[in-house]
Amino acid sequence: MRIDGYGPWTQTLGDDREHRLQILQSQLYAHLVDLFASQNGVVFYNKYDEMIAVSNGIPLSKHREIQRSVAQRFPVTISMSVGVGETPYEAQLKASEVFNEVVQRVAEPRSLLIGETLPEFDRGLVKIVHFDVNDFTRRWTNTQSVYESARIVRRLYYELTELMLENHSLLFYNGGDNYVSVSNGLPPILVEKLISSVDMSMGIPLKAGIGVSRTGRKAMQLATSSLEYIREGKTQSKVHVLEEL
Amino acid sequence: MRIDGYGPWTQTLGDDREHRLQILQSQLYAHLVDLFASQNGVVFYNKYDEMIAVSNGIPLSKHREIQRSVAQRFPVTISMSVGVGETPYEAQLKASEVFNEVVQRVAEPRSLLIGETLPEFDRGLVKIVHFDVNDFTRRWTNTQSVYESARIVRRLYYELTELMLENHSLLFYNGGDNYVSVSNGLPPILVEKLISSVDMSMGIPLKAGIGVSRTGRKAMQLATSSLEYIREGKTQSKVHVLEEL
Amino acid sequence: MRIDGYGPWTQTLGDDREHRLQILQSQLYAHLVDLFASQNGVVFYNKYDEMIAVSNGIPLSKHREIQRSVAQRFPVTISMSVGVGETPYEAQLKASEVFNEVVQRVAEPRSLLIGETLPEFDRGLVKIVHFDVNDFTRRWTNTQSVYESARIVRRLYYELTELMLENHSLLFYNGGDNYVSVSNGLPPILVEKLISSVDMSMGIPLKAGIGVSRTGRKAMQLATSSLEYIREGKTQSKVHVLEEL
Amino acid sequence: MRIDGYGPWTQTLGDDREHRLQILQSQLYAHLVDLFASQNGVVFYNKYDEMIAVSNGIPLSKHREIQRSVAQRFPVTISMSVGVGETPYEAQLKASEVFNEVVQRVAEPRSLLIGETLPEFDRGLVKIVHFDVNDFTRRWTNTQSVYESARIVRRLYYELTELMLENHSLLFYNGGDNYVSVSNGLPPILVEKLISSVDMSMGIPLKAGIGVSRTGRKAMQLATSSLEYIREGKTQSKVHVLEEL
Repeated sequence: MRIDGYGPWTQTLGDDREHRLQILQSQLYAHLVDLFASQNGVVFYNKYDEMIAVSNGIPLSKHREIQRSVAQRFPVTISMSVGVGETPYEAQLKASEVFNEVVQRVAEPRSLLIGETLPEFDRGLVKIVHFDVNDFTRRWTNTQSVYESARIVRRLYYELTELMLENHSLLFYNGGDNYVSVSNGLPPILVEKLISSVDMSMGIPLKAGIGVSRTGRKAMQLATSSLEYIREGKTQSKVHVLEEL
Repeated sequence: MRIDGYGPWTQTLGDDREHRLQILQSQLYAHLVDLFASQNGVVFYNKYDEMIAVSNGIPLSKHREIQRSVAQRFPVTISMSVGVGETPYEAQLKASEVFNEVVQRVAEPRSLLIGETLPEFDRGLVKIVHFDVNDFTRRWTNTQSVYESARIVRRLYYELTELMLENHSLLFYNGGDNYVSVSNGLPPILVEKLISSVDMSMGIPLKAGIGVSRTGRKAMQLATSSLEYIREGKTQSKVHVLEEL
Repeated sequence: MRIDGYGPWTQTLGDDREHRLQILQSQLYAHLVDLFASQNGVVFYNKYDEMIAVSNGIPLSKHREIQRSVAQRFPVTISMSVGVGETPYEAQLKASEVFNEVVQRVAEPRSLLIGETLPEFDRGLVKIVHFDVNDFTRRWTNTQSVYESARIVRRLYYELTELMLENHSLLFYNGGDNYVSVSNGLPPILVEKLISSVDMSMGIPLKAGIGVSRTGRKAMQLATSSLEYIREGKTQSKVHVLEEL
Repeated sequence: MRIDGYGPWTQTLGDDREHRLQILQSQLYAHLVDLFASQNGVVFYNKYDEMIAVSNGIPLSKHREIQRSVAQRFPVTISMSVGVGETPYEAQLKASEVFNEVVQRVAEPRSLLIGETLPEFDRGLVKIVHFDVNDFTRRWTNTQSVYESARIVRRLYYELTELMLENHSLLFYNGGDNYVSVSNGLPPILVEKLISSVDMSMGIPLKAGIGVSRTGRKAMQLATSSLEYIREGKTQSKVHVLEEL
């Protein structure tokens, strides 16, 4: 999902605009998170002016309704391109290709809705990995400066992005020491390996809750639940999986 | 600024909470950006549940009012620690030290406001550097997949964080291909060097608008204005400075 | 629906609070309208700190979720009492009686959810009447002062409240020259009579779109649609009805 | 203040729009209340799609900024007409006359800002009367049905509107059992008489806090403070006045 004509629009606001853009971006994000959640989807920031949603099980007509709702509440419109793939990486690639094709033909696209969803009889599965850092508060938040702890978060963000991409998984930062990955096709054993590798190279001990379900929101919920399971000491493993199909 | 008791509070929401947290974080951020802007300050995300504000010229009493406004609109409260330093890094370090000290004594701090502002006769100066990537849309957005372009943004985020930190400057990501640094004490010539170094090592051509003024918002405005100046071809330089004292 | 302990809470905000209350009330209303709409319900202001929802077809568990959502976004909580009746007046009466009983026993009720919904096999029907004034803009908005036109709106509000109550219907003001009534059991012929009576006594020509359906939102939509039908001159009647069961 | 081209715009939303309009109206109102409060003004609903602000001491340039802020956050724009008068009624009359004149010449006005503010050396005074009902909760809320108590509120709203208008004062409903009047020129003795008259004719015992100051927000604060003064039993009078010039 992308804000239409965002660059040129921002320039109409004059120089004293940065705070306005931050407000618009966050309110738009909050609105989209809300709307997709009500349809059992999840939304992530891609680059603030762009967002990626996991919309398994949500028909195109509902995507259109969400678009309309944005147009009715905000001074900007958004375009959406929907893609399907074996892996999340492949799905976003297809959505991007279709979109970039249109962008070359249409001068100023507005409220585009292109691409295709899964057929209704095959809603597919969503696999979500929810990472966090063991004892982040004790280790960093309470002993280092706020910016130094953010620096670790950013370094980890970059490293996890690269490591997950090798497995065609998409990674997003969800605040605090939380990272969420959409990772269909990634076996739990590889998540464990990745955690060991991060611990060795960066000295940062992670754990990961995995959730698998028919919709993004349910998979996210199960991933959070899995993470709590580890946090509460109910398993010695660093990775736990919950499935609900 | 930090949300008080955020971790434990989030757990009271049950497993199906991630979308609620995203909504809360973004609405809180939007609110704080708005309130600080009305006092001529600026706010940046540190780790979504933590924010850093440049509050030069804003008295402690106004910080308190902003805290109260949060308590009156949100189900959470925030604590603030205010620090002063020769460089932004030093200022956040002092604010963190004072805060971490209190955290070790107070079990569950709520609505803390600690630290000190500049004396009124010396509001000091704020220097803001606003970076963006030349032709990001043409080079990446329109030719690569959305996630690949976000990957570049993240890598650059990490690199700029490290490079700016060497100069005791704080860097933040403001969406799209925009990075904003609070960088008192950093001479423009070093910004130019940094741009060359990023171009050589990563092949990413940056430009930087610099603004210097008495308040964060004004400095931010001038930095944006400087960037527009370069964008419009009014200078051949990759760095432009505007001051208004 | 009522904000819990609102009076005492407002006093904690100090004297300079009126704008904060207005903001809270409107944001809470917007949130509740949104949440009920996503469940096909409708919400009306009763007295700003109290709201009345038509929640046919929405199970108690969803009412509970909506309550939770408020607690997670706002610094206040709300209580709900749900009533069922042959007429809207009777339904609110039952909901009030049950609620007032509890209030006498519980000192400071928080997040109460009491009462009962319709059994699942009988979702009942909702009848909505949407009134507006013919040519209000031409007649009053563009010729009289803003306050004089509001004065007419208020007088009409009061008159319609009384007239509809005779028929056990509830009336609400929805902005501009729009009034919406929940009016199960009221035959269209009585709406026509009421319109004639208002025209004679106050010289204000009304029209009314009526919608009947299984849910509040759908009935509201049909009522709006009926009103458009009259507005577009597709009928000479002042009342039009659409049903969709 | 009026939403530009609101009627035609709402029709672009289709029939299923009522909840969207309610959300937009409340969010716009919350935004305007916030912005005017930050400039020490106050805002009241006139007819949801129209609002009246007391903007003493706020220059036209700030009105313009507020207009821009709306255009940058909402899918609609607003027009403003500013009037000055000996009484609030006269001020709104002048603002309306100027506006209605323009409306007859301009087909579809957008973001109009017309009229005039007080000269800077004469910011004038604002007098606010804040009414509420004695023991409303005990008398009505806890003993009658919610709708019956709203009915009393509406009747009182209509009566107070008429009574205050005789004195060229504007009255607004602020939620619960609270009414706020802008009433320059009205002596406290007349407020007392009005209260007695309402008590006799309707059996509803009122009290009134009056605030007088240079700005709307300050006058409002003092009025609320005066009301608390009576509520706490510090005076036997039904009317109390606080001035701060």
